[in-house]
Amino acid sequence: MPRNHQILLDNRPQGEATIDDFRLVASDTPALQDGQVLVRHHYLSLDPYMRGRMNDSKSYAACQPLGQVMIGGTVGEVVESRHGAFAAGDQVVGMGGWQEYSVVEGGAPGMLRKVDTRHVPLSYYLGAVGMPGVTAWYGLTQIIAPKAGETLVVSAASGAVGSAFGALAKARGCRVVGIAGGPDKCRYVTEELGFDACIDHREHGDLKAMSQALKAACPDGIDGHFENVGGYILDAVLLRANAFARVALCGMIAGYDGQPLPLMNPALLLINRVKIEGFIVSEHMEVWPEALRELAGLVATGRLHPRESIAQGLAAAPQAFLDLLKGRNFGKQLVKLM
Amino acid sequence: MPRNHQILLDNRPQGEATIDDFRLVASDTPALQDGQVLVRHHYLSLDPYMRGRMNDSKSYAACQPLGQVMIGGTVGEVVESRHGAFAAGDQVVGMGGWQEYSVVEGGAPGMLRKVDTRHVPLSYYLGAVGMPGVTAWYGLTQIIAPKAGETLVVSAASGAVGSAFGALAKARGCRVVGIAGGPDKCRYVTEELGFDACIDHREHGDLKAMSQALKAACPDGIDGHFENVGGYILDAVLLRANAFARVALCGMIAGYDGQPLPLMNPALLLINRVKIEGFIVSEHMEVWPEALRELAGLVATGRLHPRESIAQGLAAAPQAFLDLLKGRNFGKQLVKLM
Repeated sequence: MPRNHQILLDNRPQGEATIDDFRLVASDTPALQDGQVLVRHHYLSLDPYMRGRMNDSKSYAACQPLGQVMIGGTVGEVVESRHGAFAAGDQVVGMGGWQEYSVVEGGAPGMLRKVDTRHVPLSYYLGAVGMPGVTAWYGLTQIIAPKAGETLVVSAASGAVGSAFGALAKARGCRVVGIAGGPDKCRYVTEELGFDACIDHREHGDLKAMSQALKAACPDGIDGHFENVGGYILDAVLLRANAFARVALCGMIAGYDGQPLPLMNPALLLINRVKIEGFIVSEHMEVWPEALRELAGLVATGRLHPRESIAQGLAAAPQAFLDLLKGRNFGKQLVKLM
Repeated sequence: MPRNHQILLDNRPQGEATIDDFRLVASDTPALQDGQVLVRHHYLSLDPYMRGRMNDSKSYAACQPLGQVMIGGTVGEVVESRHGAFAAGDQVVGMGGWQEYSVVEGGAPGMLRKVDTRHVPLSYYLGAVGMPGVTAWYGLTQIIAPKAGETLVVSAASGAVGSAFGALAKARGCRVVGIAGGPDKCRYVTEELGFDACIDHREHGDLKAMSQALKAACPDGIDGHFENVGGYILDAVLLRANAFARVALCGMIAGYDGQPLPLMNPALLLINRVKIEGFIVSEHMEVWPEALRELAGLVATGRLHPRESIAQGLAAAPQAFLDLLKGRNFGKQLVKLM
């Protein structure tokens, strides 16, 4: 059986995560049992939610066990199958984790899914046509539920979720304003992703500056917001929210290291009759087929061209992940494993 | 024409409102024009929302103009009518303001409504079977939308909104836990209003103590919350919120004087996938008939016995209002005007 490399969670971070929280190990892949499938991973997905799993605190999901392979989405190819639904050569998406190979129960619901790469590149099933894309779709359609002509804002706009959000919102006739870090990302958001405007949070690094920038970019106020970051950005959005605005709360990456991250003026929720709703897309599997169909269609017709940051080799995953948490990636962060 | 006494807003409060912000004046009621109705007020309603109107800041409603009669709900009797829909002797509810008489356009939609006092006392149309009752109904049924067996919490539980909330929630088979100030109110909430438990916020005056008290009173966690107060109470509720909890945000009386009132840990909204939604009941007039029917039924069948605090005479209104803001009232605060 092939030799497998894996990255384990070695320590729980105290505050900021570091490279020493991870450990690289090697082992042989086990021989397959009946019903199992051996998958060779082509790409590993790195996503901000993984930081939350590294903590030992109450969260929406079981925490990542110490000494176990880090959780993560993967795409790859079936190498060997002892399950009737899969055959060697099938291209598949699953939750294989931070490793080069995984052994999967072929019959377990939702563990492994065959994908069609004729119109959608394999790696996109970890981004625009995968969990991040469906995340954007859920927040937009199920929480914000915009009308054409409304103004929507999304933070981390150049990332996997943000770029999908923009394409989905434009398809519904909305004005879409992104927030991203640095002039390159902002230029990409407007010129390549087709957003109507993008605000550089490095140039507008406090509540007052962000609020003024939002006022300029959203002359009719804000009707919907998709929050990936939290902190002063959410405060500033609420200052510019219209009556009956809706906020889809997807991530608060600004607080993942444990620093306090208060919402400064929750009375604005009342004053503007705002709805704010947290969600986890994996709890809404019933919408995935519809969402994936729309996202694949946007990719196939050229209306969604997501950008990818690709780190080379499993050993590069920890540093690429830490960079992602700092916003140093540009677009969907992947690790190429072969 | 009869002599009328009125209370005007004389100054905008700087921080806490004071008795000097109000001014009592007298004038004759004007002669009626065609289509007008003269109403003698029996009761004036005092409500926390009025404090928000006294500020000159952006809020959900136009601010109360300086030098004008303070806004407020009233019940009374038609003295003279030059509109076909009303006759002398009709008992009516309206927004007559802080004065003894008002002249109303009989045909203006929503300004004046005849009420039936055979099963519901006139004053109740300002409380349990009026705006506060509909407020509780809206938050409960349209935002929290509870299932039987769920645990719901309401702050300011002994007040007009809280007591209606309790009766409506019990009618739906929920466990209802109140929060109120002092042992007398807490005893009233459990013994007379029929709540399952009541927490005294004076005995649990910080986040940790309130969170522990909520844990004891809500052994299965919190599924829905109706917020009238804000501040550390809302923080504590979120610490005990179950997945998919819903928070109806109706008031934040703790912040009405302008002090900062941050939400300490909005990441809990994400971790527990909470929905929080601000609302103003006057924007949802379409639900009033259904809500008022249910509330009148609860009163008529003895399942909702709201308590009233009655101040005597218009001149007592400012002090009674300031006391209300401090939680010194007990039940629905009214001013008897005759």
